Formats: sequence, structure tokens, C-alpha cells
Amino acid sequence: MGSNLARNLASRDGNTVAVFNRSPERTRLLTTEHPEANFVASETIADFVASLSKPRTAIIMVQAGAGTDAVIKSLSEHFEPGDIIVDGGNADFTDTIRREKEQSAKGLNFVGAGISGGEEGALKGPSIMPGGSVEAYKTLGPILESIAAVVDGVPCVTHVGTDGAGHFVKMIHNGIEYADMQLISEAYDLLRKVGGHSPAAIADVFTEWNSGDLESYLIEITAEVLRQVDTKTGKPFVDIVLDEAGSKGTGVWTVQNALDLGVPVGGIAEAVFARAVSSHPEQRVAFRAVVDARPEIAVVGHTFEDDVRQALYSSKVVAYAQGFDAIIAGAEKYGWKIDKGAIATIWRGGCIIRAQFLNRIVDAYANDPSIPTLLVDPYFAKAVADGEAAWRRIVSTAALSGIPVPGFGSALSYFDSLASERLPAALVQGQRDFFGAHTYKRADQPGTFHTLWSGDRTEIETEASTH
Amino acid sequence: MGSNLARNLASRDGNTVAVFNRSPERTRLLTTEHPEANFVASETIADFVASLSKPRTAIIMVQAGAGTDAVIKSLSEHFEPGDIIVDGGNADFTDTIRREKEQSAKGLNFVGAGISGGEEGALKGPSIMPGGSVEAYKTLGPILESIAAVVDGVPCVTHVGTDGAGHFVKMIHNGIEYADMQLISEAYDLLRKVGGHSPAAIADVFTEWNSGDLESYLIEITAEVLRQVDTKTGKPFVDIVLDEAGSKGTGVWTVQNALDLGVPVGGIAEAVFARAVSSHPEQRVAFRAVVDARPEIAVVGHTFEDDVRQALYSSKVVAYAQGFDAIIAGAEKYGWKIDKGAIATIWRGGCIIRAQFLNRIVDAYANDPSIPTLLVDPYFAKAVADGEAAWRRIVSTAALSGIPVPGFGSALSYFDSLASERLPAALVQGQRDFFGAHTYKRADQPGTFHTLWSGDRTEIETEASTH
Repeated sequence: MGSNLARNLASRDGNTVAVFNRSPERTRLLTTEHPEANFVASETIADFVASLSKPRTAIIMVQAGAGTDAVIKSLSEHFEPGDIIVDGGNADFTDTIRREKEQSAKGLNFVGAGISGGEEGALKGPSIMPGGSVEAYKTLGPILESIAAVVDGVPCVTHVGTDGAGHFVKMIHNGIEYADMQLISEAYDLLRKVGGHSPAAIADVFTEWNSGDLESYLIEITAEVLRQVDTKTGKPFVDIVLDEAGSKGTGVWTVQNALDLGVPVGGIAEAVFARAVSSHPEQRVAFRAVVDARPEIAVVGHTFEDDVRQALYSSKVVAYAQGFDAIIAGAEKYGWKIDKGAIATIWRGGCIIRAQFLNRIVDAYANDPSIPTLLVDPYFAKAVADGEAAWRRIVSTAALSGIPVPGFGSALSYFDSLASERLPAALVQGQRDFFGAHTYKRADQPGTFHTLWSGDRTEIETEASTH
Repeated sequence: MGSNLARNLASRDGNTVAVFNRSPERTRLLTTEHPEANFVASETIADFVASLSKPRTAIIMVQAGAGTDAVIKSLSEHFEPGDIIVDGGNADFTDTIRREKEQSAKGLNFVGAGISGGEEGALKGPSIMPGGSVEAYKTLGPILESIAAVVDGVPCVTHVGTDGAGHFVKMIHNGIEYADMQLISEAYDLLRKVGGHSPAAIADVFTEWNSGDLESYLIEITAEVLRQVDTKTGKPFVDIVLDEAGSKGTGVWTVQNALDLGVPVGGIAEAVFARAVSSHPEQRVAFRAVVDARPEIAVVGHTFEDDVRQALYSSKVVAYAQGFDAIIAGAEKYGWKIDKGAIATIWRGGCIIRAQFLNRIVDAYANDPSIPTLLVDPYFAKAVADGEAAWRRIVSTAALSGIPVPGFGSALSYFDSLASERLPAALVQGQRDFFGAHTYKRADQPGTFHTLWSGDRTEIETEASTH
């Protein structure tokens, strides 16, 4: 990804790009294979730094963790105040906060920048989420704008916020990506097992969906994957792939941080867990050996395919709403000023979750930047309401037919929780007061109360519980 | 809780208990109010330590975090090699691992012990989950056994494992407690909103359930809470309680650690998120203002109440299975030898999740300690199979009626995921290979593969992806 990013930079007018790799062999390979880039290659950090014009800007793309710290250390030994170090990897944003503090104490600018788009995006134009200081962005911004994807004339890069804000938002981007992929896979599973369609036929369904509200890179490539035929067996490609999904960590981080922030992200969590379930073959094999015959597949009406589409769309709106809630809570906790509309704007191109849909999120925050959830934006409220009955039919059908829909189901329950005038959380508060004297609040008057459950069961007014 | 634990200790034959609080006022209050305990009170740490016989054993009950470290520090300055410091609070188990290392370097024994049972349990007999060294348990075990709850002649305490194992298992206990409470609240919500029953009538239903498979402390107190009438308004108590559920952290920790361990704990996560959703009134109020009319409540048959019971039981089995999976994975990662049957045994009494049900878990691990999930134990497999059709009807009815069932739904999807011969995880792997060259495995042969998606779409054998 680093070499593709360097090639992207070198391809822009007026840019001369210096490259360095701890293995000189790899640097030579890059410059030999891409003479058109006119790279300035160095074999030592000192030469590399000497070859940069001031203020120096270095973008590092190495493994997150200790590797990143090592490269920052050697660069910073040669850099001068005002120079800029950019970490373009998938760093933990708390590491980025620490690194920014360490480098700014030396007068250096450190910018953690999330970059999404994979190998191809790095070469042709990724979505870039830089954090760091406003000062550093003055120099860095034009460089990043020159290599980012462009949608409707707008480059997919913005100064997200200070220190770790860029890597935080990249983490949430990846969390949403997990949810998006899980929801698509549930739609596929339903079309396959309940609808009875072949992968090729489902590819056509996804291609058709890609011309409407659901238009997005992930829907597009899903059709490509489903249309693929395995060359060795002649079977559909998706049928020969082992059904154990891997993961790399940012999905887990998103859920862990949302838990710290008190933000419910069930859609993302169920996606992470679904991959974990798939990756425990010993449990799956043992369970299938003891489980009864599977339930009969429910008979569905002629609206079934469109019902699945609406369930997918509504669940996707919930996942994005939850992701943006986490961004808002993170900004609050870490003191970042994040423009939510700008984030939706830079996700429209370059990155994995790029989609038409993001224009609607841009509009929603333009209409009212303070909406408490995307679900109350008039456009999304209507879209979800229009699909609500279909969504309910799909979750019901899946439950009756034995098809797992952790993403669709969690999203619908989230919707129904928000829509409920009263939640059974009141009972939970009663239980907690009963066994732990955790106290409760009343719906009809202010104050904090406790019932003397093991006494005469009268109510007393009390201090809020602190344990 | 500390004073109740001290009174419990003092009430046992042959025990003399020394007490110390940083506020001498509180120590005096305790000794004055409970002359029967014959406490030896001290006003300084030095006096307190001097009053203990050797090897000294001190149980500290203070706020988790810095407060605990401060007390350990002052105790350890006066303690001698062989003495025992017990932390009975809800510490983060990674802190306990660190503290054990620090104290054992000085020759002191440090034991992190999870204690469950609330104020009343502390006084009358809690469930105790001590970690620390085998050596320390030789002295400490008999003391803890003398104050623990007793079920069928067996005290609810066992040496869980070394260093942080006790606090880890206590954390999972609390995570399961979250799930248990959420599932009960969903059952209540369905009986109320779909079944149309009053809280008092539902109390009777829970009381009846408490005489069967579901017999447990939480079901018992749920009936008590639902039967309670608010003295101020004459309304059912549960209706005057504000429906925003609080939480204290161990639920969040359980899910965060399960994510690190790669263990799917959807039932616990949805319970934590359900409390979070309830605690965002600004979102709930705004959403209700824009949401369409709620769906009509589905018409249900005469088996509805029993269907709810079966859905509750099956979902509960899933939550416990997930919790025990997390214990197994934690033991593996941190090098603890944890006897799963012994854990189920000590949870039968004293603690919040105490239940008949735990005897079945004891049996399951006695029959086969190596079962890959509790769901394959013959007893649980049959119990869940017997209730499966009812469970499906309930999740379907809830989806159609607009009743949130994040716990029931997540558990059913987990069950259906394990039961599926093929999961759509294969599609997710195809997507990941398409956009990120993450590679995949084939179902029909060993090796790691990548399809040249942006080339001629042939398949190549490759190294497993490391990025």
C-alpha cells in the first residue's frame, strides 16, 4: 500500500517523491519497476531526510505498533521543528494521541491519517482522514488533496480534528464496514436459502440493487464475487470458499471503544461476533451433530426479494446512525471538533464503504447538525418507515426458517427500542435496586429513590448510588 | 459491603475479626452498632496490623482502582513474608495480575477475590471467587469457606486459579447477570405488551416459572418487583420507575475482553447495549416524534405465555454457554487451570445469578469436561430443541409487533449460526479478498488462495495475508 501511495503522489504534477524502505532491495525494486515515477531513492534514513525540501513531510506506512514507534523515532532524530511526520497506517488512535504529544513537545508535527481504499485506492485515490494540528494541515492538506479520490469535484480528504481524531474516525469507518458486509451477507443468505436462488441469480439481484438507494462499492463487488465461477470445480466461487471469516482488529476496537463511550453499536458488534462464530469450526461441527432437524423454510410471497432489499437498507441506516453516534461521543470525550457532514463527504469516494447513501447523510447534517440520531432526519425516517413492514416480515421469516440474521435482528430491535414509549429497563432498575440498592429514578418526579425491599418495602429518597 | 462481610466473619465460631477504616468514625459506628461481633478496632494501619495473628490475613473492600492500590501499599509496608492481602472488590483482573506480581516479589501473598451477593450476601453468605497462589489458599480457603453460602453442604467458594483468575471469573459472572436480567425484562415486556397482562398477573407467571427449570434468584425477585405497588400513586411500582437502566462497568469489561479473546458473546453485548439505548432519552424522545404509528400487536395463541418461558430458557442457555466460552478462552490466554464445573458449583448459592439451572451445568462438565459448547450437552441440547419452535414463534411475533427483543433475537441467531451447515461468512471472505487481497481458504482442499479480481480472475495459491 505504501508503494502505491508513493506512485500516486509521484503521478501528480509538480511532485517529486523520495522513498525509503528499511530493505534497500525493496526500494530498488520499486524504482526499477516504476521509472516513470522519477523516485528519489535513499538507502539510509539520513540520506532520505536530506533529500526532502523544507518543511519536510514524510508519510510512513508500516505495521501498527512497535514498528511505527521505531520509524517515528529514527525520523524524528533527523527532523527539525516544523517538519511533518504522517502515520498512514491503521494505528490505535490512543497511540496516535500519545505520539502527537511526544513529537509536538519536540516542535515536530505528527499527523495520524486514516487511509481507506486498499491497494487500488492508494494508487488511484483513497479516502484520507488526517488528524493532527491545524498548522500541519496547512502544509499537508494540499498534498493529500492532490492524491485523494474526488467526488463531484470535492477531494475525499478533510482535517478531521486534532491528534488522534483521524485514526478514530478511520476505526469507526472500519466498524461500519463490518456491519455493511454482515448485512449484505445476511441478505445473500436469505435469498439463497429462503428464496432458493443460485449465486448467479443473486448476483443479478445485487446488480439491480446497485442502481438504486443501495448503490455502493460493497454491493457492486458482492455481485462480482457471486458471479464468479471456480475454475477448478466449475462450482459457484462462493460455494468453494471456506465459511470462516477473518478479521484484523479495527472492528473489535470500534465495539470496545463504543462500550467505553456508552454508545450502543449492536449492528457492528453482531457483525464482529458473526465472524467469530464462523471461525469456531469445532463448535459448529459438534453442535450440528446434536441439533434436531432444521425448521422448514417459511413460504414467502412475491415481495420477498424486495422485502430483503428493504430490510438491508433499513438495517444499514441503523448501522450508520450507530457509527455516527460513536463519532459524536468520541469527539466529545477527546475534545475534537468533528464536522459530521465533512466525514460523510470524504467517505463518498475512495474508501470501502463509499456509497450514494452518504450524500443523504451529508444532507441530513446540513439540514440540522444537531440531530440526536440520523434516524430522525426526515429522509431517513421516511425511508425506514417505508421499509418497516418488509423489515419485520424478513426478521420474522428468518426466525421461523432457522436463518441467522444477527445484524437485521439487532438493528430492528434497536429501532423498536427507540420507538418504544416505555422500555423494560424500568424492571431492570427495579431488580438492581432490589439486590444491590442501586437506587432508581421515578418517571413522575425528580430525585433518586430506594425501596426498602428487605424491610417494610416503603420508598425512601436517597443519594444516587456510587457503588 | 465490607462491614457486612466483617460481621459475617465475626459470627463464625472461633473467629476474632479486626477492623480498620480510614475514617475512625465509621469504625466506631460499626463496633458500637454490633457489640455482638467483638471486633478489635484500630485507628491506624500500624495498630491494625499489630492486632493480627500470623500469618496475617487482611480483606480489603474499597473502591476499585487507585484507592485499592493505596490500601495495598500501606498494608504491604507493615506486612511480612507469608502474610495475605485479599482484594474483595470488583477489580479489573489485569490490575489483579499486576498487583499479585508486585506483592509476590516482596514475598507477600496477594489474592484477588470476586465476591457476589450484594449487601445481604456479604452478611449471610456470598459466592466467593478467589484467585492468587495455591499456597495462599491453604490459609485463606478455610476462612472463606466459613463465610460463604452453602448449597447441598458445599460452600460456594473454590480456588479459581492463579493471580487474576478470580476477578476474571467474577467479571464473567456479572456479564451473565446482565444477559439474564435483559432476557427476563424482554419476557416481561412481551407478556405485558403482547400478552396484555398486568404487572401483578405477570408476577404470578414469574412465581410459577420459579417452581420449574427457570428457578432462580433473579426470577424470584422479578416477581417481587412486579408485585410491588407504589405507595405514592397506587400504581404498579414498575410503571413509576424511570426506564433508563444504569450500569457499573463489569458488563462492559466482559464484552471488551470477550472481543479480545475472539469469543462471541452477543447475548451479553445486547444486554449492555439495551441499557445504553435506554439511557439516551434525547434520542428516544426525538425518534418517537418522527416514527410512524407502531405496528399492530400480533394475535397470539393460547401457548403464548409458555412460548415466552421457553424463549427465555433457551436464550438463557445460550448466554451461559457464551459466558463459559469466555471463561475457557480467558483461562487459555492467561494460563489458568479453571475447573468449569467448580465455577458452576460455587454460583449455585450466594450470588445474583444463583439458580437450579447451574446444577445442570455442573452435570454437563462432569459428563464431559471437554465439550466445545454447553449447547451440545445432551440435557441442554434436548431442552433447547424442545423449546425451539416456541422460541422461533416469539422472535417472529416480537418482530411483527414492534417489541424489541435484542437478547432473544441475538441468542436465536447464535443458535441458528451454529446449526447452519454453511454460513454466509464465505461471501464475506470473498469480499475481503476482492477489496483487500485478504486471501481465503477453500472448503475442498488445504492451502491459502487469492483470486486476481482486477486481473483475469484466476485463482493463485498464496501465503496467508498478514495485513
